[in-house]
Formats: sequence, C-alpha cells, structure tokens
Amino acid sequence: MSTSVENYLKIYKMQRRGAQIGSSGQRAERAILEAIRLRAGRPRSRELRLGIGDDCALLLPRPGEEFCLTTDLSIAGRHFRLDWHPPEAIGHRVMARGLSDVAAMGARPVAAFLSLGLPADRTRGKRGQRAWVDRFLDGMLELARAHQTPLAGGDLAESPLALADIVLVGAAPRGKALLRSGARVGDALYVTGKLGGAAAGLELLSRQPETRRKAIAAGRIPAGLRTSLQPHLYPQPRLRQGQWLVRHGAATAAIDLSDGLSTDLTHLCEESRLAAEVDAAALPIHAGATLVQVLHGGEDYELLFTAAESVRIPATIAGVPVTRIGRMTRPRRGRARITLQTSEGSQPLMPQGWEHFR
Amino acid sequence: MSTSVENYLKIYKMQRRGAQIGSSGQRAERAILEAIRLRAGRPRSRELRLGIGDDCALLLPRPGEEFCLTTDLSIAGRHFRLDWHPPEAIGHRVMARGLSDVAAMGARPVAAFLSLGLPADRTRGKRGQRAWVDRFLDGMLELARAHQTPLAGGDLAESPLALADIVLVGAAPRGKALLRSGARVGDALYVTGKLGGAAAGLELLSRQPETRRKAIAAGRIPAGLRTSLQPHLYPQPRLRQGQWLVRHGAATAAIDLSDGLSTDLTHLCEESRLAAEVDAAALPIHAGATLVQVLHGGEDYELLFTAAESVRIPATIAGVPVTRIGRMTRPRRGRARITLQTSEGSQPLMPQGWEHFR
Repeated sequence: MSTSVENYLKIYKMQRRGAQIGSSGQRAERAILEAIRLRAGRPRSRELRLGIGDDCALLLPRPGEEFCLTTDLSIAGRHFRLDWHPPEAIGHRVMARGLSDVAAMGARPVAAFLSLGLPADRTRGKRGQRAWVDRFLDGMLELARAHQTPLAGGDLAESPLALADIVLVGAAPRGKALLRSGARVGDALYVTGKLGGAAAGLELLSRQPETRRKAIAAGRIPAGLRTSLQPHLYPQPRLRQGQWLVRHGAATAAIDLSDGLSTDLTHLCEESRLAAEVDAAALPIHAGATLVQVLHGGEDYELLFTAAESVRIPATIAGVPVTRIGRMTRPRRGRARITLQTSEGSQPLMPQGWEHFR
Repeated sequence: MSTSVENYLKIYKMQRRGAQIGSSGQRAERAILEAIRLRAGRPRSRELRLGIGDDCALLLPRPGEEFCLTTDLSIAGRHFRLDWHPPEAIGHRVMARGLSDVAAMGARPVAAFLSLGLPADRTRGKRGQRAWVDRFLDGMLELARAHQTPLAGGDLAESPLALADIVLVGAAPRGKALLRSGARVGDALYVTGKLGGAAAGLELLSRQPETRRKAIAAGRIPAGLRTSLQPHLYPQPRLRQGQWLVRHGAATAAIDLSDGLSTDLTHLCEESRLAAEVDAAALPIHAGATLVQVLHGGEDYELLFTAAESVRIPATIAGVPVTRIGRMTRPRRGRARITLQTSEGSQPLMPQGWEHFR
C-alpha cells in the first residue's frame, strides 16, 4: 500500500485517539506534514545535507558551483481552477513553474520546498477515492523525481483558498548561470520547442461543456482531447536544454516563457538594455495554436535564449527542436522594444502576456 | 519622497498611458514588483550574488559555511487578521517567522524571498493615506534591515485572500548548525526571554471592543495597550542568541517557540528520541501571561535549546535573559514525552500548541 496523506491521517488519528491532544486542526496539519515527509522519503544528496524535519533544511553547493533560488506562487482561480484541472496536473504545473526558472538559469535542480494552503476537504478522499492532496502530490512528485529533485521542506496551512508556493534551489557552475541581462547587439534569438500549445490547450479546455470539464477535473480526460490538452496540463521544463547551453558556453542570455513571448522577450530586452526583431515566419507554431497564442500565450515553459552569431546552435538539444526566431538590436528612442517582421513589413510587438484566468 | 508601491503604480500608469499594453492586472503586478524591487534596493553581499530581477537569485556561501533554508506561509484569518492587525505588524510578523527559524539553527540571515498574494484594494491608499501593501512592506523591511537581510526575490499575485509566504536563507559554519535532533540524556533545557507574552497579547486584542480593534488594525494603538500588545504584534527573533550558541559550541539542540512550549518541546524530544522534564516553578513568565499561555501559547519566537550539564550558559545572551527550565531524560514506554514538575508532584504535559485564530 502506498503511503498517502489520507492513510497516514487515519493511522495518526487511531494512534492518538483518546490521548489528550491539542486542537484537531493543528494535529491534522502535523499529520499531513508527516505524511508528506514520508512520501518525500529521506532525500539527501551531496548538496542537500538535511531535508524535511528541522527548522530549516541545510544546503551546500559542490565546489565550483553556486546556488540559484526562485519562488512561484500558484493560486486557485488565478493560476489553476479546482473545477477545471485534475489534481495531478495542478501539482505538475506547480513544480514545472519552479523547475522552469531553474532551467532558464541553465542550472540543475537540487531541492524543492512547498508551502501549501488547502481547504480541509481536499485532504479527505470521497467514496474510497484518493484524497485530492495525494493526487496533487502524485503529479508534483512525479515531475520532481523525473528531474532528481527531492522535496526538502515547506509549510502547510488550512486555507479557504487552495494555493501552493513552490521554491526551487538549483546549482550551476559559478559565474556561468544564464542571466536575462547578458544579450549583446547582433546576437541571434532562439526558442526551444513549439509555442502556443499551452494557450491553445487552455482555450480548448475553456470551450468544453461544463460536465466534460468536471470529468477532466476529476482526471477523466477524453482520449480525443489528451494530445491537445497535454502542453497546458503537463508542460515540460527544459532543464536538459538549459544545462546544455551552460555546459557549452553557448548562450549569452536566457529566460523561460512563462508569461508569453511578447512579455518575456520584453523582460530579456529590458534587462539587457536592448531591442529585438522577431521573424514571424520563423516562429515554431504548436499544432492547433494561433499566432496570437504563439506571441502572447504563456505557460509554454520553453526557453528563449540569445547566442552570438558565431556560435553554432544545433537543430535539436536533448531531443527538443531549437529554432532561430530573430535577433537582438540596439534600442532606438521612439521605437518599440520588439519589432515583428512579417511579409507585409514590420510592426511593433507590445507585451500582452497571458494573464491566466482573468 | 520615499518610494512607495502606490507612487510607483501611479508613475508607471502615467508612463504607459496611451501605449498599447497588456491586460491591466498583469501590468499592475509588474509595476508592484518593480516598486518592491526599488524598495529592496540593489541588495548584494558576498553571499547574495544576484538579487531581484532575473529568473532566480544567485547565492554562494562563504568558505567554511553552509546555507539553511526555511519557508513559512501566513494566511489572512489564520495567521493574522486584516481587521485586527496593523499592516506594519503583519509584515513584521511574516518576516519574524522566517528569521526565527534561521535563529533556531544558530545561523546568520543572508537573503529573504517573499511570495505575496493580495486583493487589489490593498495596493491602493484611501484618502491620501499610504497603501496597505506599502505599510506591510514598511514593517517587513524594517525588521529585515535590523538583521541585515536583503529581499532578494519572490512572486506576487492578485488574490481574494491576503497571504504571504516568506523564504529565508541563512548561513552557518559547516556542520555547526543547531538541529532539533542533537539533544542527549541529561542535557539541561533552556529558554530565552519570557514566555506567554504573545498569547497574552492576542487574548487582550481579542477582548477589545470592535471599534478599538479597528483603530488598532489601522495602526492607532492606544498608549495603555502598547506594552502588552508588543510581544504579539512585534515579536523579536533571537538571531544573536542562536549565533552565540553556535559560536561557543554551547548547545546540543535547538528549536524556536512558534507553536508553543508543549508542542515545540515535543518536536525537539521526538527528533532527539528523548523525553523531557520541565520545572514549572522555573518557567520565565511574561508579565500578564497565564501558565496555560506559557505552556501552550505560541508565537513567542524565543529559542528553546539544550546544553550539556557541564557547559556554563550565561544568565543573559546579547541582552536577553536565559533560563534553565528542565532537563532531557530517557523516554519510557507508557510515560508521557514531557513531564511537568510542580510543587504538587509531576504530571504529563501533552502538546497543545497554539492554533492561531481557530
């Protein structure tokens, strides 16, 4: 029998029954924390010297490396919807957001920390089914395991609103992490994978009748929708691609596409104090996505990076295609940061990033 | 004029007026993030190599040191109340929770990260007053500055429920951090400061008439209540005391008193696989606190630590009194983890930690 939060809660309550213990809310919290601790195992590595169970975890980079750290807050109704998304997908997406930031630095994930706020009913299964929180952890821990990322700590609170703040610590060779600020005039601009798939999947999900969406939220995804919903429900952080760029000293700057190409490229331009030209015809469009979704749809979690003209970037890195989509230019007063080049001429591309469910 | 989120939002909107920009919600988020970045300054240190502004911050411990990391989630209605607590106190308490975990490891804070969820109206001031979020940051950043802790990153989202997840990174000499698990049979048990003050303050706050509580939440604390409410509204993490213990190799184990003595001592006993005896007459009781508040009230953020009998612990460390309150014993089957010794004999002390506002 696999360790589940719910089983652990039951065992915990049986053990404690009759004992004079504190208020049940806090005891339940402690039981859930213990269950998560069991599910996380006893993760230790060279870098993670102490995991869950103390006031803090202990971390030490390997010689010649440094740490990177990111936090990403996901809130029900804004970053996910309990009535639209399967719990496994919500857990996966929470972890993917953090891992993708680590990928954008070209770093290797070392440890994750989860602060979780949940309504009490999400910790209890209905009619013999697994509890929501266990299925959430299934999705989260599966992606974490795929990238050798132990869960090293966190916090838990009962909350009327479901929310999860994920903290990721990564490691990169000292001074070699990819920054947003390193691009130079004339650098070529690349993206990994295809763009717009996540936005197209969300659009498709939003157009489903309510009963079918409820089935999807319960985890019953109709076979005909699986491929199209995949980029939205289960985006893949590009860790191997980011690490490849660092290992080969190939990129001058990088960012992950979480808010959408127009917004994230603006961030990269601002931090590098440059402008950019994007070739519309070169954009790798995900099957079923529109140009608007490619340009402004977020949550694809592909990498956007720059490299000197002289550096050869392969057509695929670790199995994922890489496409040259434009170049970095000198910013000019009165001209937009980003220019989109189409067959009908060029036009300014303003940041219109994806804003989740608003 | 000091940088405030609200001023920055106004300037930002003026600059952008007329430009074809994205949905206002996300733009507002970006403006608030930029304002927080300005308020945080450009914090760099030997350990914090890159702060706010990229996908991740970059951190590197000094030679011979390692990092500790903790996350603490605070949610409106559970850890604080918008209608009871001044925004400065909420910000202070959020930061104090994180810093106190660093103190419990005997570490020095290196960087803080804040994931903040707020209703939109908390970013706007009413009738010429500063916005709630700015006053929250005032309280948070003041405590951070007092302990040389730069804000190095985080996340922000509009949320119907106000919440803040604080991440603290600290540094300690490698292998010297204080753990919960290091106590040995016969060790003496100590606490810093006085106990029960935070719970007594909360009790006092809860008994105020609603109009007075509203005034307090607005920041107008009646002079006659200030001293009594201080331990609840503005608890002080014991960083210098924890660092003293590490520097002198004085303690075998430590934990901070966030959930209350009975609960936190249980954690320390469990991790050290020991039991404990507490001498009721020795407990340092905060003026106005009851024995129940001393034993079970949380959020005092004092340190609870163990030291070998042979080690001399001074009566005060860095200006804060230290009191011997008991000793660590071998656990016995059928006997409670913690025994409270009183003039009328001994009795089991079960964990009944403070459960905030439930």
